[in-house]
Amino acid sequence: MTAATNPMRRPKAALIDLAGVLHVGDQAIDGAVAALARLRAADLPLRFLTNTTRTPRRKIVEKLRRMGFDIDEDEVQTAAQAALQLVRERGLHPLYLVHPDLAAEVGPSAAQPDAVVLGDMGPFLDYRQLNAAFRLLMDGKPFIAMAKNRYFMEEDGLSLDMGAFVTGLEFSSGRDAEIVGKPAAAFFHTALATLRVAPADAVVIGDDLHDDVGAALAAGIPAILVRTGKYRAGDDADPAIRPDLVVDDFARAVELLLARNPS
Amino acid sequence: MTAATNPMRRPKAALIDLAGVLHVGDQAIDGAVAALARLRAADLPLRFLTNTTRTPRRKIVEKLRRMGFDIDEDEVQTAAQAALQLVRERGLHPLYLVHPDLAAEVGPSAAQPDAVVLGDMGPFLDYRQLNAAFRLLMDGKPFIAMAKNRYFMEEDGLSLDMGAFVTGLEFSSGRDAEIVGKPAAAFFHTALATLRVAPADAVVIGDDLHDDVGAALAAGIPAILVRTGKYRAGDDADPAIRPDLVVDDFARAVELLLARNPS
Repeated sequence: MTAATNPMRRPKAALIDLAGVLHVGDQAIDGAVAALARLRAADLPLRFLTNTTRTPRRKIVEKLRRMGFDIDEDEVQTAAQAALQLVRERGLHPLYLVHPDLAAEVGPSAAQPDAVVLGDMGPFLDYRQLNAAFRLLMDGKPFIAMAKNRYFMEEDGLSLDMGAFVTGLEFSSGRDAEIVGKPAAAFFHTALATLRVAPADAVVIGDDLHDDVGAALAAGIPAILVRTGKYRAGDDADPAIRPDLVVDDFARAVELLLARNPS
Repeated sequence: MTAATNPMRRPKAALIDLAGVLHVGDQAIDGAVAALARLRAADLPLRFLTNTTRTPRRKIVEKLRRMGFDIDEDEVQTAAQAALQLVRERGLHPLYLVHPDLAAEVGPSAAQPDAVVLGDMGPFLDYRQLNAAFRLLMDGKPFIAMAKNRYFMEEDGLSLDMGAFVTGLEFSSGRDAEIVGKPAAAFFHTALATLRVAPADAVVIGDDLHDDVGAALAAGIPAILVRTGKYRAGDDADPAIRPDLVVDDFARAVELLLARNPS
């Protein structure tokens, strides 16, 4: 997977992953706050795309601001919101398996659910709830997953992400989940539509080889892989996924982008 | 997958699955107690092979006896025992992720684990323990799983089995588990070795199309699928797995086997 990109032209918009790119846990990544300020000063339209579903959007933005990032809530697009939009569009009444912190954002599960919506339950993972979801899937109900990430970077190391439980339910039920966050092309395209920028004119910056970079390239968007967050040695040598650029961190990505001529 | 079988010849041994074949939960399946007594009267050597790892072998046998089944503890071969044997042979010091009822059988986890051994934690599934296992796997430690079943039949319906969590850890870590219970051919062959019976001379009776029937056929053992337990309409029409016989229940399987001429 590779997208055509002109290394001499500055992109017209940047879609930026949050965890692992701007911060790890409660710590801003070195130089990221200043780099974001430089992008702002250059007037580059931005959207922040996150598959983090343990936390509602408002709290994600509050945390980023405490670290010093200049980010507006409207600029952040979460996988949880994408799931809720799909639920509304289709008139579904789901069983929600989500972290308690996200419960208020998604609302209560239906008494007689006609769909399963899975988020990242984190330490609140619960067999009884997974089994209730499994039984609905065996009964043919739609299966919507906010994300399918393999792992993410926490302050004390890589941690298991919700993709494990999406895959597990898929295996046992024989059903495929519809993923609404990254790597779904629609998730990127929705963000670009709000900015009125074509995929080939934008850039994605992320630390996840599969769900940021590979997904962006598949959606026709040039992509930069940063060597922070969940990046692991060898990610930049995957024969199937070739980022347009691989850089040490977000600050270096911004430096290289702003060195290009505006189109 | 299909094994050569002579429909006119009685097998020299039967390897019988427990849950879903002899019983569901605490209820014996209709006619199963009497059918097992008929097999005993015909002097057919028997082994009972189970992937159930929520319960130690002694308690499994106690429960079967309370239902009226004439079964000796030495005749029951569990996936948990197979895992422990492998751990001993290889001198491993694992992190055990198991149901509390199985903890005494497997012993405590090592303080500095050099392997992961996963059983069916049932309702005690715990994110923090799965994450600890994930981190060991990312560190290259061996991954042993007692079983990888998709689901099993409980008294109130089909329930999610541990295969979901094996598959999930495999997906996130990029590592493959070594499965020691069914469908591993060695698990069947170990049982037949204790009986000194060749695979082609035995028969497997089970309710799991993949982990009983498909696995037996792949191990060179004729197999009978029963339409009880986790059996679902269509299991008997899978183009990839063709049981030697499909029968309504264990009693019918025994009736047909004993109608054959002893070899």
